Formats: sequence, C-alpha cells, structure tokens
Amino acid sequence: MPAEKRVEKITDMNLDFPQWYTDVVRKADLADYSETGGCIIVRPYGYGVWELITAHLDAKFKETGHENMYMPLLIPESLLEMEKDHIEGFAPEVAWVTHAGNEELTERFYIRPTSEPLFSAHYAKRIQSWRDLPCLYNQWCTVMRWEKTTRPFLRGREFMWQEGHTAHATKEESLAEALMILDIYSNFCENVLCIPVIKGQKTEREKFAGAMSTYTFEALMHDGKALQSGTTHDFGDKFARVFNIQYTDKNNQLQYATQSSWGVSSRLVGAIIMVHGDNNGLVLPPGVAPVQLMVVPVAAHKPGVREKAEEIRARLAKTLRCKIDNTDHAPGWKFAECEMKGIPLRLEIGPKDIENNQCVLVRRDTGEKITAPLDGIEKTATALLEEIRLNLFARAKARQESQTFTAQSVPELKQILDTTPGFVKAMWCGADACEVRVKEEATATSRCIPFTQERVGETCFVCGGTAEKMVVWSRAY
Amino acid sequence: MPAEKRVEKITDMNLDFPQWYTDVVRKADLADYSETGGCIIVRPYGYGVWELITAHLDAKFKETGHENMYMPLLIPESLLEMEKDHIEGFAPEVAWVTHAGNEELTERFYIRPTSEPLFSAHYAKRIQSWRDLPCLYNQWCTVMRWEKTTRPFLRGREFMWQEGHTAHATKEESLAEALMILDIYSNFCENVLCIPVIKGQKTEREKFAGAMSTYTFEALMHDGKALQSGTTHDFGDKFARVFNIQYTDKNNQLQYATQSSWGVSSRLVGAIIMVHGDNNGLVLPPGVAPVQLMVVPVAAHKPGVREKAEEIRARLAKTLRCKIDNTDHAPGWKFAECEMKGIPLRLEIGPKDIENNQCVLVRRDTGEKITAPLDGIEKTATALLEEIRLNLFARAKARQESQTFTAQSVPELKQILDTTPGFVKAMWCGADACEVRVKEEATATSRCIPFTQERVGETCFVCGGTAEKMVVWSRAY
Repeated sequence: MPAEKRVEKITDMNLDFPQWYTDVVRKADLADYSETGGCIIVRPYGYGVWELITAHLDAKFKETGHENMYMPLLIPESLLEMEKDHIEGFAPEVAWVTHAGNEELTERFYIRPTSEPLFSAHYAKRIQSWRDLPCLYNQWCTVMRWEKTTRPFLRGREFMWQEGHTAHATKEESLAEALMILDIYSNFCENVLCIPVIKGQKTEREKFAGAMSTYTFEALMHDGKALQSGTTHDFGDKFARVFNIQYTDKNNQLQYATQSSWGVSSRLVGAIIMVHGDNNGLVLPPGVAPVQLMVVPVAAHKPGVREKAEEIRARLAKTLRCKIDNTDHAPGWKFAECEMKGIPLRLEIGPKDIENNQCVLVRRDTGEKITAPLDGIEKTATALLEEIRLNLFARAKARQESQTFTAQSVPELKQILDTTPGFVKAMWCGADACEVRVKEEATATSRCIPFTQERVGETCFVCGGTAEKMVVWSRAY
Repeated sequence: MPAEKRVEKITDMNLDFPQWYTDVVRKADLADYSETGGCIIVRPYGYGVWELITAHLDAKFKETGHENMYMPLLIPESLLEMEKDHIEGFAPEVAWVTHAGNEELTERFYIRPTSEPLFSAHYAKRIQSWRDLPCLYNQWCTVMRWEKTTRPFLRGREFMWQEGHTAHATKEESLAEALMILDIYSNFCENVLCIPVIKGQKTEREKFAGAMSTYTFEALMHDGKALQSGTTHDFGDKFARVFNIQYTDKNNQLQYATQSSWGVSSRLVGAIIMVHGDNNGLVLPPGVAPVQLMVVPVAAHKPGVREKAEEIRARLAKTLRCKIDNTDHAPGWKFAECEMKGIPLRLEIGPKDIENNQCVLVRRDTGEKITAPLDGIEKTATALLEEIRLNLFARAKARQESQTFTAQSVPELKQILDTTPGFVKAMWCGADACEVRVKEEATATSRCIPFTQERVGETCFVCGGTAEKMVVWSRAY
C-alpha cells in the first residue's frame, strides 16, 4: 500500500526524536538544506506557515499602536561597542563584513544579530520632547548569529523573526510594554498555535544581554525538553544612558527615555512540529495551516466525481484555505501526504458519497472519520476546525501537566530529567551560585520564575537556604 | 501662518530637483539617514507605502501560481564564481563576510546582491522529472550592492525588493514567464501607482549579468530623467548548463531546465515621489497611500466638533484607510502636513459644516475644494479617490508625452537632453559601438527597445547604417 510505504520512511518519534524531527521537516517539505552552511532554505510550505504567523501577530501589533519600519542589516562596529553587556553577549557570534568588492573597509560592519544599537542611535536623534514619546516600532527581518550547531527552525545562523523596539517616557511604561507584548505572544501561542506556555521572568543569568529584565514564555516539546518560544525585554534607561536618549518632560526637565524590545522567530515553526506532530508527520493548528482542508476525489475517473469535488472545493474556498488534490497518485498516497503535511481536515468524496449527497471528513488530530451531508458542509468543516484547535491545545496541555514535576534536591532533579524529562518546579534561594550548580550537576537551566508562584518545598533545593522563588527548570533546546 | 512656514522649508523642485527630492523624503518622513553609511532607515510612513506595494504585488504573484519562500542571505564564494557573466557583473560590488566572532572563515561568503546562484543550486538538487516543473518561486527580502553614491530609495547599498525565480521545461515557457511578469509589473505601475511606462527589451549592453534577455519598464521622472522601474530576465538554459539543472522529459530524454528571474524594489517609492510630487511635498496614489483620507476638525474646541469628526472617521474607516488629526496644532499646520505627506483627500469639518450637515473635501492632486453632504460621504470619498487615481495617471502621461522627442543625430540627442530632458526616440543599427558612442558623446543610455516600434528616422542616428530598431534613450537614475 502506497500510504504505508510513505509513512514507513519517518523515524518513530519514540525511538529517535531528533531524527523524527528532521524527517518531518524534510518530508513535509518545510525546509531544505542550502549551500550556505548552518542556514536553511525555507520551502514554500514552511514559509506559508510563517506567513500566517506573521499575519496574526502583525495585526495584533498594529491594533496596539505599533508601526513597522526597517533598519539597516549592517551595523558599524563602533555601535556594538557602546553597551558593555550587549557586546559581551553578542560579539562572539556575529558575522563580520570586512570587504566590499576588492576593497578592505575602513570600519568593519556586523550583520545584525538584533538591532538595539541602531534603534537606540535613531532614538537619540529623533526624541527631543515628551511629545515624541512613545515610539512603538517593529520590524520583520532576518538576523544572524554564528551558531556552532544548528537545527532547522530551532537554531540557525540566520533566522526569520520580528523585533519590536519601543521608547517611553517612564520606567513604568517600558515595563508595562514588555508585559503587554508577552501577553500578546502567549495568547497567540495558546489560542492560535494551540501550545500551552508558562509565563515568567528570566533569572539574571539567563536574561538578555543588556536588559534590566527579560520575560519569557516557555513551552514543553513532545520529548520533554523546553523551548524558549519568545522573549520581551525591559531596558529601563540602560541603553538611553549609553546612547544619550534624552527628552524634556512636561515640566521642562531633561529625562532619560526608557526602552523595551521583544521578538519571536521562526522557532515557533519548530515548536509546532515538536508539540503537535506524530508518527504520521506534521500536525498543523488550523490557524496557521496554509491548507486547512484538502479535498481528495476518490475513484476520480468515475463520471461526475472530479466535477463534484471541484464544486465542493470552490464552495469551501470562500471561507477556508482549501485545495483539491487532482494529481494522478492513488488515494492512499494522497491520504498519507495530507497526514504528512499536517492538513487539519481531509474531505474524501467518491461516487457512493455523491449518490448519498454526503462526504467523509477525516480529522488529522484524531484520525476520526465523520460522514457529513454536503448541505451545510461549510458550517460542518468550520466547526470541526474549531474542535481541532481546542483538542490540540487540550491534548498538549494535558501532556505538559503530566510532564511537570517537583524536586527537593539537585540529584532528584537530575534523576527526573534523566528518566522522565519535562518541567521541574523547585524552590530557589535566588543565588547565582546555586543556579550554576544546577547547570553543572544536572545539565539543566532555569527556564523562568513563573508569574504564577506556588510553594513546592520549604528551602532552596540546591543549598538549603531560604527559598525566595519557585523556578521552573528543564533541559532546553 | 504656520502652513506657509512649513511649506517654505521645501526647496523649489524647479530650482534644485535633487534637493527637493531629499526634502520630500525627510519632511514627509519616508526615510532617515542611519549610522550605516549608504543605508537608509525606512521610517514607518515610507514602510507603509512599501507594505501596500508588496500587498498588491504579492496577491498578483499568488494568483498566477507563485509561492513565496526564503533563501539564505549569505552565498558561498564558490557559487558566485560558477557563472562567468554573473560574477563579472556583481563581484565588484558585493559585501564580503570574512569573519565570525573572532575567527576567520575558511570560505568567504557574500551578502546576496540577488539570488540566482542559490536558486540554481537548489533547482539542481530538486528538479529531476518534468513533473517537478514549473517551479514558480518568489522571495521578499533585502539585497546589498556596495554603491559608491547613494540616494534614498533610488540607489542604496541595501534595498528592499522581491526577487522571483522560476524554472521551466522549455525556452518558450521561461520567455513567456518573463513577459507575463513584465505585464503584471507594468499594469501595477500604471493602474495603481499611476505611473505611465514604456515596456521593452534591454540591449545586450544593458541586460542583466548572466541573462539571455532582459525586459524592462521605464518611467520618466519630473526632471526628465528616466528610472528603470523593474526588470524581468529570461535565462534560457544558461544557468542550467552551469549548475547542471537537468530533468527527464515525457519521452525519458534528459533536458536542461530553463529559468527566469524578475524584481521590483523600493525604487518604486522613489518613482512615486519623482513622478507625482510637487512643491507642497509628496503626492501619493490612493492605492498605496497609508492614509487615504485625513479628517481635520476645524474649531475643534467648539462643542460637538470633535465628536462629529470622530463619527465621520469611524464611518469612513470601514471602507477607506482613514485617520483623524486630533493634535493641538492649528488647522493651517495640519493642512500643510496633509499636503506634505501626500494624503490624497483631506476632510475638513467645523461648526458651520455640522449645522449644514456637510463637510469640505480637499483633493491633494488639484487642491480643489468640494463641499459635500455628510449623507453618502463614503460614496463621495471613494469616487473622488478614483478620480484622483485617473487624474494622476493622465497628468503623468501627458507630461511624459510632452517630454518625449525624436533625434536624427547624436548631437541633436545631446542638445535635447541638455535643454529639455526626457525620453528621446531614435533609430539604431544594433551595433554595440554605436551605443557606446551615444554614452560617450551624449552621456545617455539606451533605456529599451520598445515593444511598440515606430520609425522615427531612416538610418541609424549614430553611424548612418541600416536602422534595425527604434530605441528610447535618456539620462537615467
């Protein structure tokens, strides 16, 4: 059977998760390897998912008053050197442009790994008065970080992202912005991508290079490893003091502006694969599926089948992203292909169905087959897509909960992560030394200090000192 | 008067066109200078125009079966060297990445000036059978060309563009694709941007590095200089033979694939400025105006004015891109600001208007003031925007025609371009030597061999030999 033949090519996710991931990326045709080491080619299907992610988020950014703009790709070396923490964080992994044509440049440029220095320099020129604030900007672009080990969508030398950069009058406002965007991100992640997240603050050790504080939303992948899915940063006036971004307030006093920045990237595509995928391939949440429903004519050579199938496609295309598979492959091959590509709903229609004025709808998430009348098929399909969305989230949420543990000691944490990986909650004294010990002894990192705190122990699980905060620990991508 | 104060800051376009251009770019807040030499910051208003351009074109590309994807920013040096003409064209102006972090790279990478080599390498891996064809891809990105002299939107080291890259089975198909896209471009340019164009083929000397043939659409700016507004290229099997892109056809014979590529860039924003702009600033075609109508309350402190103005904005916002200016600037300042930013329609409403259930609409293109009843204002505004679109095109077309001449000799050409710059039609024998002489003696270039030919002389206007073709010559941006 062709269907089985195709499916057997994927590695079992329970046997070799990294290989399963690579198989899905390649066989669902999300990405391909390129001639440029460490950089992927984002294939049309993967780019289609990204386009839908960007459309959702872009609308939210605009609703909340943000404007898109575009900063140069290259940044002069002198700007990188201005903020001490920022250069320490990024200098080791930036790509340097040193020549143009045959000439050596007098000043080197680096390809943006992120654009805080350019936005800060721009603000310094443009912000003079409280009337110029806030500045609420975003840009969609790619950035470059010269990683040693790369994985498609998860870690690459170049990746697609958006970077928001805002300037405000007060520290309260830049903090409120960072938290507001975190909500936009996590709501999108949970409601559209169907990925449950834990929201919280990064520890000092894990925060962004140059930030006052970093906020994160963390998701749990199928294999029990965490994925930092996006972050927002409150800079307070740190960059403003270095770049001299000052404005006169309403009382005619000179004040430093405050700033935030925030970003999500094509990592989210990796998260979708690793949270929802299964041994038949990709499973796409309906909100970001380039094709939400695929019509597959069965016994298409029989009179009237192709025409009826096309008629249904045209009807559904008015409200859904809908295609028809009119290739000359066998139906079994087409079914397997729909599954591999994670298309939420498949609509099968053959001569018998047409006789009975019905069709068969097959859910990608559960495999369930539903015989449905053709009358009102638009409503049926739309309702099913909504059910799929809710089910994907509920399923992922249940798994996340079943993979969340507590630990009272570092050996216990290590034992859990070695045997049943997941999120591990444990009390922490707040000392950096304890965080370092966890990394060294359990190869785990603090994911965040969750906003929703609970007491899961009496003392710091590392040193036994006074417990300040509950922290979520994990091994992470 | 504040209005005059603001307007007087722009240089008169008839006195100093380049300075007028720079003034409009800065004062309409389309772009700003950056810390990165030769690269601009595209400000939100300029980016908003670009977003509308991309939305229009992206829809057309998708309608005609093209898919977006994304190729790496960096290209290994070895790929550049594969196609002889391509390297000759681009090597002198590419930016080289030689180091990452503190390490020197073993192979240098260049930042894409265009992506033919990466697409060709990708096709070589993926195209095996006639079933794999055609491949119809596009990517939205920025590219880098290390120009010596730069001007915002017109010529920059980095600019925003789209690059289409397609692969086909036959030479007829790649040629048809190049011509089909040229039609999409020029229809968009004429119908949405309201810019009349001349379509034609580039001479051998002016064609793209590596192409079999290049097609172009050329527009005439206010100062009589030409702007190459976009190009499409038919590669035939030139790249396929170098990159070994072969497929088995239906008869099981091995064949080389054929390719096309095509692009338009943020240059189009420059074209809009230079075709439609006037001494009051920018004039935006309604189809790409981020704000199509600005509501300006007059005597806004009077009771009910602000509320009524907001009510009208909300009504119009359902069908138009519409904003309200509620700042505390004087109305005169606001009117001048609307003009500077090229907003197609301004709606003024004050207490007297409200009493009479009317408002005043002011056209940016003609300055005409129209008193219009508030009932049915949506229809009135929409109809006016359509009139503005038609008028902008008609006006630009009439100017282009009045600035189009014919010449029978190179001195005559030079004389025309020195005194009344524009397009100059002249017969050409087809010899490269004659084209070189025109460049040397009249500092003019061939813009294209128009598809629509006419005889404007008996012999080659340079050498007096047999006239092969009518060519349009000009000085160009």
